[in-house]
Amino acid sequence: MPQTAATHTFRHLKTVHILKNLATKPVDLTVEGVLSSERIERYCAQSSEFKLLYGTERVTDDVLQALKELAHEARLVEKMEAMQRGDVVNKIEGYPSESRMVLHTAMRDFFMHPNEGDNAKKAAKAEKKECDKLKDFMAKIDAQGKFTTLIQIGIGGSDLGPRALSVAMHAFRKPGRQVHFISNVDPDDASGILQQIDPKRTLVVVVSKSGTTLETLTNEELVRSRFKQAGCKPEEHFISVTGEKSPMDNPSRYLASFYMWDYIGGRYSVTSMVGAVALTFALGYDQFMNILKGAHEMDRLALNPDIHVNLPLLGAMLGIWNRNFLHYQTVAILPYSQALLRFTAHLQQCNMESNGKRIDKKGNPVDFDTGPVIWGEPGTNGQHSFYQLIHQGTNVVPVEFIGFRESQYQEDLNIQGTTSQEKLLSNLFAQSIALAKGQKNDNPNKVFPGNRPNQILLAKRLDPFTLGALMSYYENKIAFQGFCWNINSFDQEGVQLGKVLANKIIDHFKSKRQGKKSEKFPEAEAMLRHLETL
Amino acid sequence: MPQTAATHTFRHLKTVHILKNLATKPVDLTVEGVLSSERIERYCAQSSEFKLLYGTERVTDDVLQALKELAHEARLVEKMEAMQRGDVVNKIEGYPSESRMVLHTAMRDFFMHPNEGDNAKKAAKAEKKECDKLKDFMAKIDAQGKFTTLIQIGIGGSDLGPRALSVAMHAFRKPGRQVHFISNVDPDDASGILQQIDPKRTLVVVVSKSGTTLETLTNEELVRSRFKQAGCKPEEHFISVTGEKSPMDNPSRYLASFYMWDYIGGRYSVTSMVGAVALTFALGYDQFMNILKGAHEMDRLALNPDIHVNLPLLGAMLGIWNRNFLHYQTVAILPYSQALLRFTAHLQQCNMESNGKRIDKKGNPVDFDTGPVIWGEPGTNGQHSFYQLIHQGTNVVPVEFIGFRESQYQEDLNIQGTTSQEKLLSNLFAQSIALAKGQKNDNPNKVFPGNRPNQILLAKRLDPFTLGALMSYYENKIAFQGFCWNINSFDQEGVQLGKVLANKIIDHFKSKRQGKKSEKFPEAEAMLRHLETL
Repeated sequence: MPQTAATHTFRHLKTVHILKNLATKPVDLTVEGVLSSERIERYCAQSSEFKLLYGTERVTDDVLQALKELAHEARLVEKMEAMQRGDVVNKIEGYPSESRMVLHTAMRDFFMHPNEGDNAKKAAKAEKKECDKLKDFMAKIDAQGKFTTLIQIGIGGSDLGPRALSVAMHAFRKPGRQVHFISNVDPDDASGILQQIDPKRTLVVVVSKSGTTLETLTNEELVRSRFKQAGCKPEEHFISVTGEKSPMDNPSRYLASFYMWDYIGGRYSVTSMVGAVALTFALGYDQFMNILKGAHEMDRLALNPDIHVNLPLLGAMLGIWNRNFLHYQTVAILPYSQALLRFTAHLQQCNMESNGKRIDKKGNPVDFDTGPVIWGEPGTNGQHSFYQLIHQGTNVVPVEFIGFRESQYQEDLNIQGTTSQEKLLSNLFAQSIALAKGQKNDNPNKVFPGNRPNQILLAKRLDPFTLGALMSYYENKIAFQGFCWNINSFDQEGVQLGKVLANKIIDHFKSKRQGKKSEKFPEAEAMLRHLETL
Repeated sequence: MPQTAATHTFRHLKTVHILKNLATKPVDLTVEGVLSSERIERYCAQSSEFKLLYGTERVTDDVLQALKELAHEARLVEKMEAMQRGDVVNKIEGYPSESRMVLHTAMRDFFMHPNEGDNAKKAAKAEKKECDKLKDFMAKIDAQGKFTTLIQIGIGGSDLGPRALSVAMHAFRKPGRQVHFISNVDPDDASGILQQIDPKRTLVVVVSKSGTTLETLTNEELVRSRFKQAGCKPEEHFISVTGEKSPMDNPSRYLASFYMWDYIGGRYSVTSMVGAVALTFALGYDQFMNILKGAHEMDRLALNPDIHVNLPLLGAMLGIWNRNFLHYQTVAILPYSQALLRFTAHLQQCNMESNGKRIDKKGNPVDFDTGPVIWGEPGTNGQHSFYQLIHQGTNVVPVEFIGFRESQYQEDLNIQGTTSQEKLLSNLFAQSIALAKGQKNDNPNKVFPGNRPNQILLAKRLDPFTLGALMSYYENKIAFQGFCWNINSFDQEGVQLGKVLANKIIDHFKSKRQGKKSEKFPEAEAMLRHLETL
C-alpha cells in the first residue's frame, strides 16, 4: 500500500532506511579538527529572534539532507497547516477516541497574517472576545486597587504552563503584585500558600475545563472555607476559567467566568484564558499581548516549508535523529537562565504527555520509539549536580541548551574583569563543547568520551515576546515529532486507568468511615492495611 | 584471580550470573492472580519509621535471595562499615585521585551508639563543637530579634540539599522566619531575591568549602554591594561556612565562620554546617537536632546485616535489579507530598553525581551500567503530566513512590466523604497498582502494558526526624549501589572539563574588554560571534 500523509507508518518511510544507514557511522566529534569553528559557524539556523546552533549534534550534510527529506516525505508542514486551520487531528482512526480540533494556535491568532481556515478564524474570534472581557475586567480590578495577590488553583496544564511563565516573567511584574499556585491534592500545598496571603486582598482563579477535576474542586473547597473563616465572601474573590455551561460557569459563585474550549488541550492552554488571567494580573494586559505576539510569530514560522527557517521543524528532526536513529532514551533541557526554573517541568508535561504513546493514529502498536523522557534544571546549577553523569555516565543524554545574550534585570557587576552574564554564557558554551569533544587523558578518571550530542537555542533577552515564542517553539516542535511518528499527540488515555483505580480506593476510605461495604479491591486493601499499621 | 571486596569487578561476581539468568524471565505482574493481596502483604520490609512495599517490583523469592547473596558476595555492609568508621574510601587505585575519608555520617553521630572508629569519633567531636558554636550564635541572634530573613549563597550541594530540606520543613518554621537561596551565576537569580528582602533584617550565609567557588564568590560580591548601597555593613550580616583557614575564614569580613572538612562531599553535606545554619535559623536548634537524629538512626540501620531490616540496602539491591538486569535507564522518584517539591532535585544531584561514573575503583572502564538518570515531580501533580509516558510510553521507567499517612499541617477538609490526605494516598496506591498490573482492552488506546516496576516508601508523617531519616535512606542507598558496582561514588572528575573550558572563554570576554589577545579557542570564538550577531 502506498504511504500517504494520513496513513504512513514511520518505519516504512523511505528516508527512514537512509537515516538508519547513516546512523551506523555517525560523525565522530572527538576527532581533531572535526568540531571546527567553520562547523559551528555553518550549522546554525536563524529566524525570528532565535538562533539554533547545532554543530555539536552528531549530524553531517548527508544526515541533514535526509532529515529534510523525511520531513517532506511525512508531509510535516502540511500536517501543521491542517492542525492550525482547524482540521480534526486529535483522533485515532477506527476506534472510539477523542475527535477534536487542536487550536491552541488560534488563541494568539489575532495579529499579523491570521489563519484563513474557517475553524481557526472562528476560534480566534471567540478567544479575542474573552481577551476583551479580560481587559475590561482587569481595568476594573486595577482601578479598585483592592487586590494585590492572585492564587490560581488548577492542576496539570492549568498549573505547570501558567506557573512556568509566571516565574519566568518575575522581572516584568507590576509593582506589588503576587501570584501563587495551588495544584496538589496534598492538603499541605494549600495550607502552605494560605499562610502567606491576606484573603481580603486576594483573587482566586479556579481552572478546570470540565468543571469536575477532583484535585481542583477539592482545593477550591478548602480555600473557599478559609476565605469564609476570614470574613470574605468567596463570590467576590473567585473567578472561574472553564468550559461554557460547565458546573463552574455560575455567576452566583464567581465574580467572573472566562471560557476555554474542547479544542484546547490542557498542556497547550497557557496562551488561552488558563494562563491569561494570572499573567494579565501580574504583568498587565499589554505584556500578556506581547507573549501572544511572540507565540504567534513562531506559529507562523512553523508553517514555513524551509527547514532552515522553520526552527521548530529543524529542532524536531534533530530530536528524531537522536531518538530513533542514535537511540537515546532521554533529553535534558538545560536553560542557562534562572527565570526558566519551572520551564522544563512545563516542557516535560507538554512533551511526555503528548508523545509518550504506544499506538499510531490507526491504532497499531508502534514498533519504534516515541517521546523520550524530558528532564532538566537550570545551568549553571546543574553543572554542580547531574552534569557528572552527562559527561561520564554509561548512558548518553542528548542536551538542549537555552541561553540569552542579556540578563532580564540588567543588574550585573563586573567582578574580576567579566560580568555574571558573561560568566554564565561562558559556562554554557564550555559545556556544549566539552560534551561534544570530550577529552583524552592518561588518567582514566580524566577521560571524557565526548560525542554527547547537544544544541544551543540562543536569543537576545528573555522578555515577554521571546518567552511566548520560546514556548511556541517547543509546542510546535513536539507536534512535528508526533506528526512524524504518526501518533496522536493530543489525547492522554494513559492517565485514565490511575484515575479509575484511585476512585475505587477513595470509595474504600468513604465506605469505611460510613461503616458500609465497598467493592472488593484486594491489592489496594493490602496496601491500606500496611498504611494503618505504620 | 579470586574476587575480593576491594577488587571485585561487578560482572565477574558469581551471583551476577544467577541474576542474569533470572532476568530472562522476570515475573509477569499482569497475569491474573499474580499481584495478589498476599504478595502485597508479604513483600514489605519495615524498620525505623518506614515501610518499603515492593510487591509491585518484578521480583520473586528467587530474585530476592540472589540479590541478598549479591549484597553478601560484594561485602556491601562491610564497605558501609569501612565508610562510616572513616577509612579512605574516596580514591581510585593506581592513579592520581582524591584520597579522602567519607564521613558525612559523623556529622550526626553524637546520639545513641556512636561509631567506635577513631576517625569517625574525631570527626563527630569536631562537628559537635561546631553545633555548640551554632547553638550559642543562634541564641544571640534570637535574643537580638533583629533578623527575620536568611539568604544562603552556595551552589550544588551547598544549595540543593539545604533548599530541599528547607522547603520540606516549611510547616515547622519559626513564626516570621524566611529563608532564601541564591545559587545561579545568572545575575537574575540574585536580583529576584534581593527585590524581596530588607537587608537590615537579613543574615547572609555564604557556603564554599574551598572559599573559591566562582558562582558563589560572584554572587557574594553582588549581594555585598547591594547591602552597602542599603547602608548595611556586610561584616555585621555575613556568615561563612567554609574550610578552616580558607580565604573565607576571615573575621574581618564575617560575623561568624562555621567549618566543614574535606571528608564532607558537597552533595552529602546537608547535615553538616552547610545545612545547619539555615535550618537552625528557620526551625530552631532542637528541630535541627531532630533531623540529625533521624539521619543517624538510618545510618545505624545501614550497618545491619539483615537485608529485611537494612532498608537502604534492600532499596539499593532492587535498584540494581532494575538497572543491571532489567536494563532500565532512568528512575522516577515521585513523592506524594508537596513539601518534597525540591527533594527530587537533591536526590538527582546526590545520585547522578555519585554514581554517574564510567570507571571502577581500579581505573578500568566499566562494561556494565552504573547510575541511572534520576528525575521526578511530586504526585498528584505529575499524574496530570508525564504519567502518560510512564503508563504507555515505549520505554519503561521504574518508579519510586514516597508517601505519608498524615499531612504536615493537619489542616484538611472532608469533601464528598473523604479528606484530601485520603484522596492523595488513594492516588498513590492506584498508580502503583495500575503501573504493575496494566489493563487489557479491545480499544488499543486503552491498553496498558503493565509490568512497570515500582515501589512505595511509606512513613507516618513528614516531620524533621522522618525527613532526616529519608535523606539518609537515599544517601546510604546510593553508597551501597556504588559499592556494588565498585565505583568511587565520592569524587566528581566529570565536572572538571567544563570548568576549565569555561575559564578559557571567560578569559576571552575579559581580554576583549581590555583590548588584549587571549589564548586561541576557535570553536568557542565561533559561538561568541553567533552571540554578537543576535
